Amino acid sequence: MAQKKVTIIGSGNWGSAIARIIGNTVVQHSTTFQTRVPMWMVDDKKLSEIINTEHINVKYLPGKDADILVFVVPHQFVEKLCNQLKGNVKSSAVAVSLIKGLSGKSTSSKLRLISEDISETLGIDAAVLMGANLAPEVANDNFCEATIGSKNLATAIELKKLFHTDNFRINIVQDFQTVEICGALKNVVACAAGFSDGLGYGDNTKAAIIRLGLMEMMRFIEYFYPNTRIKTFFESCGIADLVTTCYGGRNRKVCEAFAKTKRPLYELEAELLKGQSAQGPLTAAELYDVIKTRDLLKMFVYFLILIYLNSGWDQMSFLKFRFPLFEAVHNICIGQVPVEE
Amino acid sequence: MAQKKVTIIGSGNWGSAIARIIGNTVVQHSTTFQTRVPMWMVDDKKLSEIINTEHINVKYLPGKDADILVFVVPHQFVEKLCNQLKGNVKSSAVAVSLIKGLSGKSTSSKLRLISEDISETLGIDAAVLMGANLAPEVANDNFCEATIGSKNLATAIELKKLFHTDNFRINIVQDFQTVEICGALKNVVACAAGFSDGLGYGDNTKAAIIRLGLMEMMRFIEYFYPNTRIKTFFESCGIADLVTTCYGGRNRKVCEAFAKTKRPLYELEAELLKGQSAQGPLTAAELYDVIKTRDLLKMFVYFLILIYLNSGWDQMSFLKFRFPLFEAVHNICIGQVPVEE
Repeated sequence: MAQKKVTIIGSGNWGSAIARIIGNTVVQHSTTFQTRVPMWMVDDKKLSEIINTEHINVKYLPGKDADILVFVVPHQFVEKLCNQLKGNVKSSAVAVSLIKGLSGKSTSSKLRLISEDISETLGIDAAVLMGANLAPEVANDNFCEATIGSKNLATAIELKKLFHTDNFRINIVQDFQTVEICGALKNVVACAAGFSDGLGYGDNTKAAIIRLGLMEMMRFIEYFYPNTRIKTFFESCGIADLVTTCYGGRNRKVCEAFAKTKRPLYELEAELLKGQSAQGPLTAAELYDVIKTRDLLKMFVYFLILIYLNSGWDQMSFLKFRFPLFEAVHNICIGQVPVEE
Repeated sequence: MAQKKVTIIGSGNWGSAIARIIGNTVVQHSTTFQTRVPMWMVDDKKLSEIINTEHINVKYLPGKDADILVFVVPHQFVEKLCNQLKGNVKSSAVAVSLIKGLSGKSTSSKLRLISEDISETLGIDAAVLMGANLAPEVANDNFCEATIGSKNLATAIELKKLFHTDNFRINIVQDFQTVEICGALKNVVACAAGFSDGLGYGDNTKAAIIRLGLMEMMRFIEYFYPNTRIKTFFESCGIADLVTTCYGGRNRKVCEAFAKTKRPLYELEAELLKGQSAQGPLTAAELYDVIKTRDLLKMFVYFLILIYLNSGWDQMSFLKFRFPLFEAVHNICIGQVPVEE
């Protein structure tokens, strides 16, 4: 059996950190993988220039002969990139997305995932890898964990081989949707955690925000994917990533500064993140649109009546179809509500 | 209906913080509760002297005419205290324990809870209240949450009235065992988090420790109480308390200093906590005894065979009956294993 060719389509800190891991694992498993891994590494600006103005020469397309495509680019570039790659990847190839965010194709009635965009555009299987993985710490080889989500077991096992090391430990789960959406939603919760820090509240309050945020993440995901498994939230992609992001992530940092200084978010982002972006406020805006649909409101009224008729043990059940924390983060970010409220 | 008399048997920061909350709620619900709340408040030393040497005069026993007894004393005093109170409390009274730890009566085959000690000795119902509640922040009226665990719904609702405020928000669950054991076990995980901090690791590693620790907490509780509800771990008593304790608690603090300085734990405890105690190392020792039983080993071998025969999706299943993190914390605390390992 020929060794598989791995290609990284990456940029930024996270792309570099993960390339370092893959560079070691392919040597360790040289009977499974080719040891030469091309990395299509460009900085964000160049990548955007190439895609928008130069229309990428297909002769140099990174996908062409790859068996495993590792996507680790900012999520606003995925769609155009996939359109360029379309028809130029092996039909037997698999993709794995490390991108945290929701697809721009999400509508108010149907959530759309980035891995689904990749999978459908390229006509190949797409798995995801998410977890508590602040890039500088991964680059520093500190012990951490990550979760691979894939509906296909064979793919998941192969990918585990590609990513798993003693200090970067991989678990596999099947409901990739939960894994992927956790990666997007946690950034919104981290904004709330940042506001709390900026207002000078302590660890109790932050823990309450993390818990309430996790509850909203679960309700949201269960609404769109009723088959989601509660155990997935206990994986690295769930609580662990949420905790890391709420303590050490960039959304927390920017939102802490926002609560302290009241200066515009985009200014603080430019100043504090040096070119990187904070996805939390964007994701909060996307969520807000999704939440404010007739479907959810209908559902809410329906359950309110049900609960009223059966009023039982858990008196808070009727809250299960509301997302006060997600909504508050959005309203604060757009200046609709003062952060103190 | 006569108003109920509440009595606080308390000491320390947590006793004072909770007394402040109760002082307000009884006034707010003055048709339900008597507004005069005796607090049997003594510092730890005095309490110990009274119990050990003066044999408490029953005429002054705090329980005598109370309808609700709030226990918030260090857990080493509970047993003697209850023996003194025995026969001197109303048969209709209920107790609520805010004490974090395991009963000294736990054996290798049967876990024993402090609330069970209270309930059986006094012959009354005993509920528990646990949550992400660092005492200084509660005293400061920062927003936080807590969980009441009670098998009796009427008791739980009454207690919620006594504790719930806008900034101290109570949820109710039925499996009080899970609530109470979470309160004990999280201190062991916090020790591991402290070691990680002391060794200079970052947020990824700490999030991994929190996640792995939570997994061990769940496995441990499920082993002794197979009816435990996974949802309880998502309450304040579960993940939220664990996160707070791993970032802001005293066990973390002492264990961070231990990993940095290699000085004895008791010295660091005396120096850093000023009279308060770190329960984590003690609880780790208790757990170690419980874990090292034939029952668990038998169970382990049995499941190993089962898993081997059915080797399926989750290849890590056979790990479910081991507690490497709990064991490591104990072995580090007693100096058996260097913290770097």
